[in-house]
Amino acid sequence: MGKSFAVLGRAFYSNDFDNINYIDKGLFCVDDRGYIENVIKSTDLEYENAVNAYKKENTLYELGDNEVILPGFVDLHIHAPQWAQSGTALDRPLEVWLTEYTFPLEAKYRDLDFADKVYNDVVRTTLYSGTTTAVYFATVDREPSVRLAEICGELGQRAFVGKVVMDEKEANPGYCCDESADSAVSETEKFIEELSGLEGKYSQGVYPVITPRFIPSCSTECLEKLGDLAKNKKLHIQTHCSESDWEHNFAKEKYNMSDAKALNKFGFITDKTILAHAPFLEEEDVKLVASKGASIAHCPLSNAYFAGAVLPLKEFYSKGVNIGLATDISGGYCPNLYSAIRQAVISSRMLNDGVDPSLDKDMRGRKESSVSLNNAFYCATIGGGKALGLPLGKLEKGYSFDIQVLDISKGLPLYYPEKREEELLHKILLLSNENNISQVWVQGKRVK
Amino acid sequence: MGKSFAVLGRAFYSNDFDNINYIDKGLFCVDDRGYIENVIKSTDLEYENAVNAYKKENTLYELGDNEVILPGFVDLHIHAPQWAQSGTALDRPLEVWLTEYTFPLEAKYRDLDFADKVYNDVVRTTLYSGTTTAVYFATVDREPSVRLAEICGELGQRAFVGKVVMDEKEANPGYCCDESADSAVSETEKFIEELSGLEGKYSQGVYPVITPRFIPSCSTECLEKLGDLAKNKKLHIQTHCSESDWEHNFAKEKYNMSDAKALNKFGFITDKTILAHAPFLEEEDVKLVASKGASIAHCPLSNAYFAGAVLPLKEFYSKGVNIGLATDISGGYCPNLYSAIRQAVISSRMLNDGVDPSLDKDMRGRKESSVSLNNAFYCATIGGGKALGLPLGKLEKGYSFDIQVLDISKGLPLYYPEKREEELLHKILLLSNENNISQVWVQGKRVK
Repeated sequence: MGKSFAVLGRAFYSNDFDNINYIDKGLFCVDDRGYIENVIKSTDLEYENAVNAYKKENTLYELGDNEVILPGFVDLHIHAPQWAQSGTALDRPLEVWLTEYTFPLEAKYRDLDFADKVYNDVVRTTLYSGTTTAVYFATVDREPSVRLAEICGELGQRAFVGKVVMDEKEANPGYCCDESADSAVSETEKFIEELSGLEGKYSQGVYPVITPRFIPSCSTECLEKLGDLAKNKKLHIQTHCSESDWEHNFAKEKYNMSDAKALNKFGFITDKTILAHAPFLEEEDVKLVASKGASIAHCPLSNAYFAGAVLPLKEFYSKGVNIGLATDISGGYCPNLYSAIRQAVISSRMLNDGVDPSLDKDMRGRKESSVSLNNAFYCATIGGGKALGLPLGKLEKGYSFDIQVLDISKGLPLYYPEKREEELLHKILLLSNENNISQVWVQGKRVK
Repeated sequence: MGKSFAVLGRAFYSNDFDNINYIDKGLFCVDDRGYIENVIKSTDLEYENAVNAYKKENTLYELGDNEVILPGFVDLHIHAPQWAQSGTALDRPLEVWLTEYTFPLEAKYRDLDFADKVYNDVVRTTLYSGTTTAVYFATVDREPSVRLAEICGELGQRAFVGKVVMDEKEANPGYCCDESADSAVSETEKFIEELSGLEGKYSQGVYPVITPRFIPSCSTECLEKLGDLAKNKKLHIQTHCSESDWEHNFAKEKYNMSDAKALNKFGFITDKTILAHAPFLEEEDVKLVASKGASIAHCPLSNAYFAGAVLPLKEFYSKGVNIGLATDISGGYCPNLYSAIRQAVISSRMLNDGVDPSLDKDMRGRKESSVSLNNAFYCATIGGGKALGLPLGKLEKGYSFDIQVLDISKGLPLYYPEKREEELLHKILLLSNENNISQVWVQGKRVK
């Protein structure tokens, strides 16, 4: 348990999908468990007294005029081991990308020294660029996957970590594959146990996730048994879903139903499920996902390379599907959510307007698809929190005190007052990089 | 005149549109006018002697193991005054963006203190992020436009600057408009004269550009007279061309011909012409532009917001059109070419693969449109140099010594040797930000 304290400064956060709250001068009071217990504005009667009380206790952190608080970001889908190859081989065919780059790399993490080195770097890199919560795919091997969870715990990032399940011999090379369906499930069980052993050790929380890589990489027997485990454990579940035409059609051929329906048949569509990508969900899939309360991890950067289409974010959201954002390292090359926010907007505009100038304007796009910066910011914060069932993304009473502090004195054009308050937020979202982030706090603990 | 010297280090640059040259250990010998006079590799016989000779003269700059040289970037289209609003109002309708944001802002530069402040910032910001050459739109007013050119000169950036011509009363508000066609032309002439006065003052070169904003913002009389001026002066010309459906159709309605053909009719399509955007060029326009040797400034970020389609870069290039890259501040929000390189690749993949998942895979995209990182890097360096008729973008004898030095020890995952040398370049292009750029040199002079 920490000590209660307060941070004084200005802040932006999403009120809802479309609207931003701005607090010009707010006293964010944090309790000894790292939750916000009160937010007192400078216009509130008790403001002066409260500020003075914290000052007296020496527990007031006053931010400078150049500093702005944003909620920490939630990265809903990131392959931690792939950080070592980020920014390379995106121009290679998927087959080459998998067999020559990705699988050999993931197998390398059995070398725990290598795992320590890369995992420390990826967790620090994402944390320092504002990702206070991350949902990780580790690798097929249990031991380095546990190590990833510990490193997140030690560095102070809230994390959901999965030992990847991939037992299908035809889809995976022998050196990067579960030995059998049974061992895939028993290793997952052991993994869950080991992570339960960490419970309470890290105040921000580090949790296990049941992680079938995706339908094509698992045998039917494995999916059935892992589905049973998921039902018993009631844990979070993550997998890829309808990422590409190929994946979307794979389940249809093997199980005679869509990817989402097949996942549901095995018990993998719950209100604790994160489906990565999912641009090809069909009408009925969307209804299913919405009714079950599962979430989509939108990976706009990686989708541009591997999906072959843009997620109809606005449509799926309007149909009741919760959506968060994700980097999808290394299908996406960039470790921070800022890029995902920017590309989510850009990709949506391309879906809306179309891309091919030789087509008639009216035939070119899919109208009503544009996503605003406000929408993308919501997904990167509140959307991610909802996917995990945690009070994240708002700076209000009862929420975890997960914040990033932006130093706006570097790199942003600030020549006159913005016409609308949220324009400062927009500048921050579009023009900041890691070097603007002067502080990061998770569950009330400063980690940068 | 400077002093001759040499830089010792490793470097990447484009050999051609598809291929990268890598020099593992090269001695880049620069003459007293800032041109590369020799590149000696560590495997060359004279290497040791040459290194020692420069050492003896105390004119050897040896880079560290963590440093990599890239050629400086050429930004072919940037509205310097709009830097003050970068990152805002991109979600507003074009009409609001112009009348409430852009025009009032551009008019503000008559206040030369304001101009000094913003122009110093935008030139420093772009220069420090690797843009060694920039082609600027200034504003309708001559005096601040001259100031922009001087600031580029002083800070050491090679620059092409245009006083913007916009005399059409129906298209522009009275407070941001040339008084008449005649005054637009005479002010342009004076602007050219004043910049000629700077000739020789700055070794890297600062040049005037004839700059009709675009056809809709100019009267026919003005376009005719400015076209005559362009013919007489044989200067560089910049304008927007077929940026959107609206612009593409405007010339058709007014002049009964395409935008490109109308520009050509007035004398604006030459081998010194830079056409910003141009995704909607038709078959015959492409032939015209290619045959005249004009270039396109590709603005992938801004096109996502305002064009409504993606430039078919690969197709136009294969038909003989030279293409460079551009930020298009503030239609594009990001002041560096790294973002433009990244988005050029992403946008091209979306053009190639399509965006709407509800369409059949074969109907979705426009095949053969994907642009590689190597292609985009070529456009940002050699393509830009070709557009300007200058020896830029290669690190070879006779080229200007315009470089950026990347410190790769920060933010890049470097855990094992790359499978292909160019993969290190790819990591740099995809994962660097301004803080990785430790040095910038223009025409042999260090400016960062």
